[in-house]
Amino acid sequence: MTTHTFTPTHYHNTMGSHEPVLRIASGDSVITTTVDAMGYDMHGQRVTRGPNPQTGPFYVEGAEPGDTLVMHLDRLTPNRPTGESGPLLAPNVVDPGWLGNIPWDTGTDDIRWNVDVQKGTASLVNPEGKLGHLTLPIAPMLGCFGVAPYDGQAISCMTSGQHGGNMDYMGFVEGVTAYFPVFVPGALVSVGDGHALQGDGEITGSGIEITFEVQFTVNLLKGKRSYWPRGENAEYIFTVGNARPLDQALQHATTEMLRWLQDGYGFTPREANVLLGYTAKYDMGNVFDPAYTMVCKMPKRYLP
Amino acid sequence: MTTHTFTPTHYHNTMGSHEPVLRIASGDSVITTTVDAMGYDMHGQRVTRGPNPQTGPFYVEGAEPGDTLVMHLDRLTPNRPTGESGPLLAPNVVDPGWLGNIPWDTGTDDIRWNVDVQKGTASLVNPEGKLGHLTLPIAPMLGCFGVAPYDGQAISCMTSGQHGGNMDYMGFVEGVTAYFPVFVPGALVSVGDGHALQGDGEITGSGIEITFEVQFTVNLLKGKRSYWPRGENAEYIFTVGNARPLDQALQHATTEMLRWLQDGYGFTPREANVLLGYTAKYDMGNVFDPAYTMVCKMPKRYLP
Amino acid sequence: MTTHTFTPTHYHNTMGSHEPVLRIASGDSVITTTVDAMGYDMHGQRVTRGPNPQTGPFYVEGAEPGDTLVMHLDRLTPNRPTGESGPLLAPNVVDPGWLGNIPWDTGTDDIRWNVDVQKGTASLVNPEGKLGHLTLPIAPMLGCFGVAPYDGQAISCMTSGQHGGNMDYMGFVEGVTAYFPVFVPGALVSVGDGHALQGDGEITGSGIEITFEVQFTVNLLKGKRSYWPRGENAEYIFTVGNARPLDQALQHATTEMLRWLQDGYGFTPREANVLLGYTAKYDMGNVFDPAYTMVCKMPKRYLP
Amino acid sequence: MTTHTFTPTHYHNTMGSHEPVLRIASGDSVITTTVDAMGYDMHGQRVTRGPNPQTGPFYVEGAEPGDTLVMHLDRLTPNRPTGESGPLLAPNVVDPGWLGNIPWDTGTDDIRWNVDVQKGTASLVNPEGKLGHLTLPIAPMLGCFGVAPYDGQAISCMTSGQHGGNMDYMGFVEGVTAYFPVFVPGALVSVGDGHALQGDGEITGSGIEITFEVQFTVNLLKGKRSYWPRGENAEYIFTVGNARPLDQALQHATTEMLRWLQDGYGFTPREANVLLGYTAKYDMGNVFDPAYTMVCKMPKRYLP
Repeated sequence: MTTHTFTPTHYHNTMGSHEPVLRIASGDSVITTTVDAMGYDMHGQRVTRGPNPQTGPFYVEGAEPGDTLVMHLDRLTPNRPTGESGPLLAPNVVDPGWLGNIPWDTGTDDIRWNVDVQKGTASLVNPEGKLGHLTLPIAPMLGCFGVAPYDGQAISCMTSGQHGGNMDYMGFVEGVTAYFPVFVPGALVSVGDGHALQGDGEITGSGIEITFEVQFTVNLLKGKRSYWPRGENAEYIFTVGNARPLDQALQHATTEMLRWLQDGYGFTPREANVLLGYTAKYDMGNVFDPAYTMVCKMPKRYLP
Repeated sequence: MTTHTFTPTHYHNTMGSHEPVLRIASGDSVITTTVDAMGYDMHGQRVTRGPNPQTGPFYVEGAEPGDTLVMHLDRLTPNRPTGESGPLLAPNVVDPGWLGNIPWDTGTDDIRWNVDVQKGTASLVNPEGKLGHLTLPIAPMLGCFGVAPYDGQAISCMTSGQHGGNMDYMGFVEGVTAYFPVFVPGALVSVGDGHALQGDGEITGSGIEITFEVQFTVNLLKGKRSYWPRGENAEYIFTVGNARPLDQALQHATTEMLRWLQDGYGFTPREANVLLGYTAKYDMGNVFDPAYTMVCKMPKRYLP
Repeated sequence: MTTHTFTPTHYHNTMGSHEPVLRIASGDSVITTTVDAMGYDMHGQRVTRGPNPQTGPFYVEGAEPGDTLVMHLDRLTPNRPTGESGPLLAPNVVDPGWLGNIPWDTGTDDIRWNVDVQKGTASLVNPEGKLGHLTLPIAPMLGCFGVAPYDGQAISCMTSGQHGGNMDYMGFVEGVTAYFPVFVPGALVSVGDGHALQGDGEITGSGIEITFEVQFTVNLLKGKRSYWPRGENAEYIFTVGNARPLDQALQHATTEMLRWLQDGYGFTPREANVLLGYTAKYDMGNVFDPAYTMVCKMPKRYLP
Repeated sequence: MTTHTFTPTHYHNTMGSHEPVLRIASGDSVITTTVDAMGYDMHGQRVTRGPNPQTGPFYVEGAEPGDTLVMHLDRLTPNRPTGESGPLLAPNVVDPGWLGNIPWDTGTDDIRWNVDVQKGTASLVNPEGKLGHLTLPIAPMLGCFGVAPYDGQAISCMTSGQHGGNMDYMGFVEGVTAYFPVFVPGALVSVGDGHALQGDGEITGSGIEITFEVQFTVNLLKGKRSYWPRGENAEYIFTVGNARPLDQALQHATTEMLRWLQDGYGFTPREANVLLGYTAKYDMGNVFDPAYTMVCKMPKRYLP
C-alpha cells in the first residue's frame, strides 16, 4: 500500500502499450499531475501537444487480460487558476439546417475562466454581454483516462472505447471508483484531460480545460471479466458505452449493466431485465468526440 | 376561467384533426380521465383499443397556427389500484449480438403492480425471485399527449414528433407546464397513456400502464412560434426533440433551446451558445418508440 | 380489365384514408396525370400546394388488410418540357463541420432543365460555368406513391413508411412492379412526385421535378401479407425499408427480403441467409427526407 | 521502377507505425501474398492470428504527411482452391425484433467454397438444400488495406478510418487505383483480407475468405492532401467514408468528393454541388465492421 508521487516528463496522445513510467502494486496509490487538453501545464507553458495528453502509463503488477482494474479517484484538484473553453456548440449537436445561425465567423474567440478551487467556482474572465462574469460551481472531472486497448492497438485520446479514453463523462469526479477491463499485462493506466467543469454532453467540444493534481488508487478483481468501463459512486453503480450513434453507446452500456447484474449480483435474466427496466437511469457522457458516450446507472439501494 | 369536467365516450389512436369533444377557452381547465395504453379503463374493462388511446381532442378557442399552446399539468392521479408492465428490455436497447441472452421464450409474462396512491408506491403483485415484491416510489406522468400535427396529418400514438405524442418522458409530471406549437385552429389538445412510473428511456417498452384522472389548464401565447414541445418546472425550462437516432432527437432539442434563449430571452447567439454549453442538462425520454426522445434542460437560475 | 382515364381535380399532401376518387377492379389500369412536387401542373400553373401532391386515392375493389397490392408501373412520361431542381446538397449529407463551405448565401437559385422526352435528355436551361448546359439522360421515376397507412393515420407526403410514400428511389421506373401491404379496405393507391431524373440519394432534396402522365395496373395477392414495399424488375426482386438512420432502413429492407425468400420462395432460414449474404445488392433510395430509404435486391437468376 | 517480390514472414493485426518490411520507391511495384482473415495461408496452415493479418508495411520513399499515396491494384489472384464464409446474417443488419428467426443455434456451421480461378467461379463444397452447390462468379477484392493512421495510432484491422483499413468494399478489385492520405513518413502501406467474392455490405460478416497473390504499384501525389480513401476505375472516381452510422459514412464520402471536385477539378462550390447532386452514385461498403463504409462515385464522363 504505497503512495507513489510521480512527476511526468512526457505524455502520450494515444492509449496504447507504451513503455510504463512506473510499476505499482495492487492497493497502491499514485499522486501525479496532468496537463490540459492542449498540452499546457500548470504554469501555462506548453510542454506537449494535444489531444488530451496522458500522464502514464502506470503498470499494475499482476494485472492480466481477463481481470478488471479498479481505480478509485481519490482526489482531482485543479492546480491552475485559469481554464479555457470553446464558446460555440459543435456543429453535430444542432440541426444541420440551423447551422447558419451559429456565429462561426464572429463569435469563435475562446473563453477564459477564473477557477477558484477554494470557493469552488469558475467565472468568466471577460464578461459576455447579458451573461456578465457568469459564475458556475466547479465539478472537477477526468475527461480522458483508462487502460491500454486490446490487440496491440494505440487509440487516439480524441476518442473512446472499451478501454475508456476520452469519454468526457461528468460523472467521473473525485470519490468515484472506475473499473476497466484489463486487455494487456499491467493494464497500463493513464490519466489526463481534467475539466474544472463540463457541460452535459460536452456540446461545445470542451469543458473548462485545466491542469490537475490527481491522486488515484488501484486494485484488481482477478479473473473478473468486464467488457466496458464501469463505475460506482455513493448512490449508483454504472456502466459506460462508447460508440456512435448514441443509440449504440446506449446498447453497450445497457448490455454491460445486464451482465453486471447477472454475473456480479446473481440476478436471473428476467430479474435483471425487470430491475433495470424500472429503476435504471441514463446519463449522457459526450456527444462531440468520434465515439459518443452513454452511461447506464443502477441505484445501489435496489441491489442485494 | 371555467373548469370543465369531461367524461370521454370514445378515444383516438392518432393525434390528428379529429372532431373536438369540447371547446374550451384560454385559461380554462379540464378535469377528465384517461384509459391505459391498451384501452382498459379504471374498472379494468377494455373500452377501446391501443396504442395509447387519447381523450379529446379539446378545441382551444382562439388558438391559431403560429401560436404556442401552454398546458399546465395541474393533476395526474392514477385512479386504478393495479398497473401492467412488460418484463423484458426491448430488442433495440441491447447489443444485437447479445439478444440471445434475453429470455424471450420463457420470461415474457407481463408483470402486474399494486399501485397505492396514498403511500405513493408501486409493488409487484407476484414476487420475482430475488426482487421479491419490489416496491418503487411512483411518479405519475403522461406518456402520450399533445396537439394535432401540421399538414392535415394524423400520426399514430405509437410515435411522436413536433406535435408531441408518445414522447414517454419521465419529466411530464404533475406541476409541469408543457408548451406545444399550434399547427391547426383550436390546437386540438389530447391526453393519454398515463404511467404510474416509468423507467428512464422506457427501455422495456412500457411504464406501469394505468388509468389516470387528469386536470390541466390551457393558455395561449399568441403569435409566439415554437417548433418542438417545450416545458417548464420549478428548476428548469426544457425542450423536447423526437426523432431517430437519438443523436437527431438531441439536435432538435438543442436547436429549439437555442431558439428559446435567443428569441424568448434575448440572448445573442454567442451568449446562448456559451450559456447552453456550460449549464444545460439532457434527459432521455424514450428509446423504444419509432421516434426516440431527448430533452434539453436549462436551469432557470441562469435566466434573466 | 378496364383502362380508366382519370383527370384529377384535387390532390392530397398526405397518404391517408381520403375519399376515393375512383373505384377500380383488380386487373384494371388507370391513366392519369400528376402535378409536380410543389403543385404546379403541366402548364406551369400552380393548382395545389406541396409537398408532393398525390393524385388519387384509387379504391381497389376487394383489397383488404393482410393482402398485398400489386401495382405495375406501365408508363411514366414527363408531360412538360421543363423541370426544376435545387442546386445545393442538403445540409444533412455533408460533414457538419464542412457546411460553411456550401454556398448557402450566394448559390441557392433553383436550376431549370429542358426535358426532351423524345431525345431522352435533360439539359440545364442556363449554363453553370464549367458544367455549361449539362445534359443528362432522363430516367423518369415516381418519387412518392403508395397506399394508405395503418391505424387511420394520414402521413405527410414529405416522408415514407411501410405504406410507401416519399421513398424517392431511382428504381421506381416504368416497367417496374411495385408491391404494397394493404392496410385499409380498398388499399387507397395514390401517385405523385414525378422526377425526370433523380440523383442517387436525392442528396439535393430534389430530382428534376416535373409533371407526368402515368399509367399503372393493379392486382391483388389475396391473403399474402407483406410488411414493407417491395418491387420487381427484369433482373431483381427488391424490398424497401424506410427509416432513420440509414442503418435502420437497411434492417427493414433486409428483414423483408428474408421474409420474402422464406415465405414466398420456400427457402429455409439458413438457405435464405446464405443466398442473401452472397448475392444481394443494396441501393440507396433517399437520404434527404425525414425517413431515409434503403433497398435490398435479390437477383432473380438465383431464385427457383 | 523496380518490381519487388516479397515473401512475408510475419503479419500485423493493426494498421500502425510498425517496422517496415521493405522500402520501395515511388513507381515501384510489389508482388507478395496475403493470408486469409483468420491467419491461414495458401496451404491451409494457420501461420498467424486474425483479424485480417496484414502483409507489410511497405515504406514508400519520399512519402510525407500531406501527400497522397497512389496505389494501383495490378493483380489480385486467389491462390488457394478453397475459401470459408459465415452462413448467417450479422445481428446488426436485421430488425432487432426479428433476430429470433435467425437460426443461431442450429445453422451456424461455416460454409466452404471451391474457388476456381480459371473458371472464375466459387461453388459450395457441401450442398445447401434448395441452393444445391450454389455457384457464383468470383470478383476478387481486398477487404482490408491502406496506410498507417495519424497521431501514432495503431488501429485494429477489424475496423476502418481515414487511413483505409477494413473497408470491405466490393469495388477494390484488380485494375482499380486506390488513393490514401499519407499520415506518417513512408506512408506504411499494407495489404490483407482477400475475398474471392463478397456480398454487398458484407452482411454475413465475411466474404469468401481466401489467400491472395497480390501485385500493386505505388506512386505519390506530392503535396496533394486528401482526407479519406479515394479510388478510380474505368468509369468512376470515388471517395470512401468510414464511420457509424451509415449516414455519417455517407457524409464523409460526399464531403471528400466535393473537395476533390473543387480542389482537384477546379469546379466552383455551386458547380460541384450541382454535378454531384444529379450524377453521383453511392455504393455501400460494409455494414458489419465497427465502422461502416459508404462510397460516393462520380462518373468520369462528366469530368473535364
